[in-house]
Amino acid sequence: MAMPDFVVASLIPAAAVIGILFAIFLWKRVSAIQLTGGRLISSQNGREYLLEEQQGGGEEEVVAKAADIQKSISEGASSFLATEYYYLGIFMVIMAVVISSLLSIVTPEGDRTRKDEIRNGIFSTVAFLLGGATSILSGYLGMQIATYANARTAVEARKGIAPAFMCAFRSGAVMGFLLSGFGLLNLFLAITVFAKFYGDDWRGLFEAITGYGLGGSSIALFGRVGGGIYTKAADVGADLVGKVEKDIPEDDPRNPAVIADNVGDNVGDIAGMGADLFGSFAESTCAALVIAAVSSLGESHDYAGMMFPLIVSATGIIVCLFTTFIATDLYPAKVIAEIEHTLKMQLIISTLLMTPVALGVAVWALPSSFEMSVPSSSPDKAFDTKTVKNWYMFVCISAGLWGGLLVGLQTEYFTSNRYKPVQDVADACRTGPATDIIFGLALGYKSCIIPTIVIGVAIYVGNTLAGMYGIACCALGMLSTLATGLAIDAYGPISDNAGGIAEMAGMGEDIRERTDALDAAGNTTAAIGKGFAIGSAALVSLALFGAYVTRARITMIHSSILDPRVFAGLLLGAMLPYWFSAMTMKSVGKAALAMVHEVRRQFNTIAGLMEGTTRPDYKKCVAISTQAAISEMIAPGALVMLTPVIVGALFGTQCLAGVLAGSLVSGVQLAVSMSNTGGAWDNAKKYIEAGATEHARDLGGKGSDCHKAAVIGDTVGDPLKDTSGPSLNILIKLMAVESLVFAPFFYNCAHGQGLIFDFFGWTQ
Amino acid sequence: MAMPDFVVASLIPAAAVIGILFAIFLWKRVSAIQLTGGRLISSQNGREYLLEEQQGGGEEEVVAKAADIQKSISEGASSFLATEYYYLGIFMVIMAVVISSLLSIVTPEGDRTRKDEIRNGIFSTVAFLLGGATSILSGYLGMQIATYANARTAVEARKGIAPAFMCAFRSGAVMGFLLSGFGLLNLFLAITVFAKFYGDDWRGLFEAITGYGLGGSSIALFGRVGGGIYTKAADVGADLVGKVEKDIPEDDPRNPAVIADNVGDNVGDIAGMGADLFGSFAESTCAALVIAAVSSLGESHDYAGMMFPLIVSATGIIVCLFTTFIATDLYPAKVIAEIEHTLKMQLIISTLLMTPVALGVAVWALPSSFEMSVPSSSPDKAFDTKTVKNWYMFVCISAGLWGGLLVGLQTEYFTSNRYKPVQDVADACRTGPATDIIFGLALGYKSCIIPTIVIGVAIYVGNTLAGMYGIACCALGMLSTLATGLAIDAYGPISDNAGGIAEMAGMGEDIRERTDALDAAGNTTAAIGKGFAIGSAALVSLALFGAYVTRARITMIHSSILDPRVFAGLLLGAMLPYWFSAMTMKSVGKAALAMVHEVRRQFNTIAGLMEGTTRPDYKKCVAISTQAAISEMIAPGALVMLTPVIVGALFGTQCLAGVLAGSLVSGVQLAVSMSNTGGAWDNAKKYIEAGATEHARDLGGKGSDCHKAAVIGDTVGDPLKDTSGPSLNILIKLMAVESLVFAPFFYNCAHGQGLIFDFFGWTQ
Repeated sequence: MAMPDFVVASLIPAAAVIGILFAIFLWKRVSAIQLTGGRLISSQNGREYLLEEQQGGGEEEVVAKAADIQKSISEGASSFLATEYYYLGIFMVIMAVVISSLLSIVTPEGDRTRKDEIRNGIFSTVAFLLGGATSILSGYLGMQIATYANARTAVEARKGIAPAFMCAFRSGAVMGFLLSGFGLLNLFLAITVFAKFYGDDWRGLFEAITGYGLGGSSIALFGRVGGGIYTKAADVGADLVGKVEKDIPEDDPRNPAVIADNVGDNVGDIAGMGADLFGSFAESTCAALVIAAVSSLGESHDYAGMMFPLIVSATGIIVCLFTTFIATDLYPAKVIAEIEHTLKMQLIISTLLMTPVALGVAVWALPSSFEMSVPSSSPDKAFDTKTVKNWYMFVCISAGLWGGLLVGLQTEYFTSNRYKPVQDVADACRTGPATDIIFGLALGYKSCIIPTIVIGVAIYVGNTLAGMYGIACCALGMLSTLATGLAIDAYGPISDNAGGIAEMAGMGEDIRERTDALDAAGNTTAAIGKGFAIGSAALVSLALFGAYVTRARITMIHSSILDPRVFAGLLLGAMLPYWFSAMTMKSVGKAALAMVHEVRRQFNTIAGLMEGTTRPDYKKCVAISTQAAISEMIAPGALVMLTPVIVGALFGTQCLAGVLAGSLVSGVQLAVSMSNTGGAWDNAKKYIEAGATEHARDLGGKGSDCHKAAVIGDTVGDPLKDTSGPSLNILIKLMAVESLVFAPFFYNCAHGQGLIFDFFGWTQ
Repeated sequence: MAMPDFVVASLIPAAAVIGILFAIFLWKRVSAIQLTGGRLISSQNGREYLLEEQQGGGEEEVVAKAADIQKSISEGASSFLATEYYYLGIFMVIMAVVISSLLSIVTPEGDRTRKDEIRNGIFSTVAFLLGGATSILSGYLGMQIATYANARTAVEARKGIAPAFMCAFRSGAVMGFLLSGFGLLNLFLAITVFAKFYGDDWRGLFEAITGYGLGGSSIALFGRVGGGIYTKAADVGADLVGKVEKDIPEDDPRNPAVIADNVGDNVGDIAGMGADLFGSFAESTCAALVIAAVSSLGESHDYAGMMFPLIVSATGIIVCLFTTFIATDLYPAKVIAEIEHTLKMQLIISTLLMTPVALGVAVWALPSSFEMSVPSSSPDKAFDTKTVKNWYMFVCISAGLWGGLLVGLQTEYFTSNRYKPVQDVADACRTGPATDIIFGLALGYKSCIIPTIVIGVAIYVGNTLAGMYGIACCALGMLSTLATGLAIDAYGPISDNAGGIAEMAGMGEDIRERTDALDAAGNTTAAIGKGFAIGSAALVSLALFGAYVTRARITMIHSSILDPRVFAGLLLGAMLPYWFSAMTMKSVGKAALAMVHEVRRQFNTIAGLMEGTTRPDYKKCVAISTQAAISEMIAPGALVMLTPVIVGALFGTQCLAGVLAGSLVSGVQLAVSMSNTGGAWDNAKKYIEAGATEHARDLGGKGSDCHKAAVIGDTVGDPLKDTSGPSLNILIKLMAVESLVFAPFFYNCAHGQGLIFDFFGWTQ
């Protein structure tokens, strides 16, 4: 009862198109909110909202101000992206030349001809460009939506929590569905078109398709790093002068860096995060495909079986669509206390719904059993044949799916201020910033335990059931509810910006309280999103690693940790995340210092700025952040892009295997601890500010010494949680996918022994 | 022209005894300094020093006060050690029972009998107890000397830089030589006595001897963790109230925690560091011996060849003895600017002198070529025979020796305030504590690059030349100049305490300036010492890992990173340093909070304390630190001691191999970055305080906003550099040596498959 080919060939694009249409539908609903004055009676969802007139200024004036600010943010964001994409365009052209030439010069072996190698070079390049373009498009659209939605959320907050929540959540969902839809559709189209040229050579076809993952992740690298530096340079710079020196509130329009800060939320958390997760999706699918191509699925040309990873993602979009309806129409959050719960339920419900769907897909799309080729632990041969039952793959998908949920929930526990860990950190502020920071660092370290165990178990289960294909399916499972994950993730920065706009437009205290509540929940979901991102990155990168090992012809015996090349590689690989983080943190620090000087200069030289009678020069600050982000992303980008090529070509494929494994195991810890430490400091600060409990009020609230200590912790956490930590996901994924794409070239360098070792005759 | 047996058998104990005698000789010279009043004209070294009368109070009064404070510190230290050793005694008895029983119940295989297993159990236990006792003895003596010397250094500082430096340096050297002498002597005696019982079974003999390393490292674990928590609870607690709240200087006698802080420097940096490096020495020697026992050296009963590791250490003591003369008699530091240079030259000279000596030892003690058994990379057999030339071992020793120097010098570059990195961190204080901390963290991350590359190259060279024996010899090379390393290391806390005593005894500003200069150099040497400690720990632990793998019968194919058990182990192992650090940092934070409350209580309730008319209750603070250290070291201690046993017995030897490798590669990075970050913050603060350059004065000096920011950074750095970072060395070494000792037991659990996997039938 295998799934017929035509069902597969229509299900995948249909689901992708439905996702895109749903996104457009949601966008229409968001755009129904008018950014003009007039009596605010909305009849959305068939409910009438009473207009609460709490703001100081006249109503029209406030809305016009919000629209004006939104325009500045949108312009700043577009101008940054235009600059960034200009340089990325140059980078992609160079990479395209490198990929096509390095892969085309590979000496053909066995029954491969020169034509095969050139074809591989060309199609890998095309896939690379397509992946990069899809990532750019998704990031760009996501940001347009986010900047479009933030002022509308602020305006809606005047009506109450429910409409504001709805606006922010729907806009996040637009991003989630657009990205998953486009990602899936383009990948499917690429496979379909490539198949015309490759005919029966499925192995060659899917090896070339891996370029799609490389393209997606390359853009994600610069999106994450550049966006991360942009946002935190502006944020840290704005806080250091505004909150610490001038004692004006966050998002005060008198602060010259405030627009840059709000732009940063969009380019970092929306465009960067979107590109990151799109990269994970593209890479895990590519890893699964390239591994399946050399299994009995690929050899017997079982179309439905091969397309299993795409079918999972396709059904995932539909599942997420239903899940979204629950938050937008069935049970929307109506009071502050419900927000975090509603968002968390999205994750739980999508996981619950996806589980039986995954079972159905596994049973229907896959043959009842098939054969995978796995590295052999017997000394006689390089590969064993492992018989895999179709329901094994359901287990793998579920392991990823539920593992992701578990990681998400534990992240919530460690970063939400409703639980003890963050409250302890807030409590440590009593004795000043030093203890705040010590406790925060300890919290981050501790939060590595569960994710590591979850990933470790997923790896063990996946690998035991179906080798590296199992691990790729774990990653796919974790990403199958991507649309929902992205939606709640994008919700955060939209709410954050809405709060900023409410403040700047001079809306009342009550409105600001509502946007703050939306934002606090957003902080936690952002941390959960980061947990997902790093968890999936670890699995994806291991699956890519498995595919690399096969393609580079590394057997088990050659990848022993007793081999000095592998072990030295492991050690160097474990160091890379630290080197990379040193660069990104220092970049944020440097850029923030430049921002501080500019903000101070404006306060000192522009008369009437502090009194609010003159407008600061926002554009100058936007330009500083843009400049810093572009120039500072080169060095870390080069480290990530060049390391696999240098190690692989000069020191051989075994050493590279060690480097990949080392950076994976060490990077996961560093990324998790950085994200959670930063998230905890941020929410500890919010906990003291909000003063929602007896204990919190006891800490003194805004302006107290405790709060000042918490602000310092929050500032330290900014680059950790929004620049260095999330960028590490890309480090570990990108090095793996790059190694996979270039594996034939590395093998071509002295049969994988590395040119240096070959030169000195130290081959084995 | 092999070295005759009688030469070996007399050279090793002779060198050890000479080292001990030299230590006693130095002690005599230190004790010639009188802690009584009277006209201070000293004629040490044949030079006369003019007496400078700068102190405020009468001379006799100041000296008497110093003697009194020294007594308090000495009492506090002894009382802590007595409490600690009481619990360690209990722990050692339990461990002795565990070791002897787990090893005795192993089912004999091959030609081994039950008697062999029981003998292994008993002698391993004896070696364990001996190693533990030696470590305890060394720590105790080191601390006696340090607490004896600190007041004398302060008193000598009144005469000038030269005599004070001499006193501190000599006392450090006492510690260095005593520890290396006793460590070597006891190990040699144990081997000699054990040989009577083992006869020709050298393999069994040296396997039992590994217990010596386990004993040394177990004590080191608690010394480092307990001592680290003790010292930083007191330090952080004292600073938080004294410097931050009450605005009184460091080491002010009005601060109730000041004595506990000074005691802490001794128990943490002297006893803890001594135990750590003694553990490294014992373990690297044991690893080399146990590997050599299964080589042609052991099989042909080549006594001189087998004893090569001990001969290297023996000649190292003599080399260090000459090196010490250079600092104490030929070119002692006479002015402030010379101190750091003199200490650094110690490292360089000992390395230079040791190099030809190592060549001589390798050529004379080892046969011109011998055979090592190394894991085979061919699929046909488990082991290959590698022919090793004697000069290969010279290369390995040198790689370790010079690698250690390189790591030391780069640590100096990153932590001394004479170079740009620390000055950049100091500069970042302009924008407050947050940027100080961001830059400091980035500095620590960046400082991982060189040590990792150095260790990676050493591993590659060592392993390529002589398998795991080569790596053990790299570690031995790095530790061959241990006496000098320890001397300059112990110098730091002695100077630090001398400064404290000078302050408390009310000596003049000039004297305090001298002790501050001694202390600043000490901070850098302490960081260098930590660099050595972690570098050697990495090599030692890899060598132990190699020995474990052999004893647990893991072949290359079973230790592939493609094996899901190994990879899951790798990931979990990489997480352990984070878990461990979370515990130790939180412990320091908690204990510091308790200390803060006590100090505040005393300031609030004891009348006249702030005015200096009443004496605070020092003992209460000492008791709090002791209590915290003892109770907080249980959880991290249990994590380290239990992990190998649980993983090895339940999840099998392959998974344990992954855990060991993962914790090694990840722990090295975390330890290096923590130590250097902390060292840099401390010296950035000192840089601002000292104001030695135009740039430094520009930052505002003591009491400025910059300085306040730097103090916060320093406080955060305290647990990083003195508790969590250095404790990680022990984590990675101890897990490896424990796995080595228990390897036969783990193999006995379902043939190394692990009881859980065996229970479910998931064996391979």
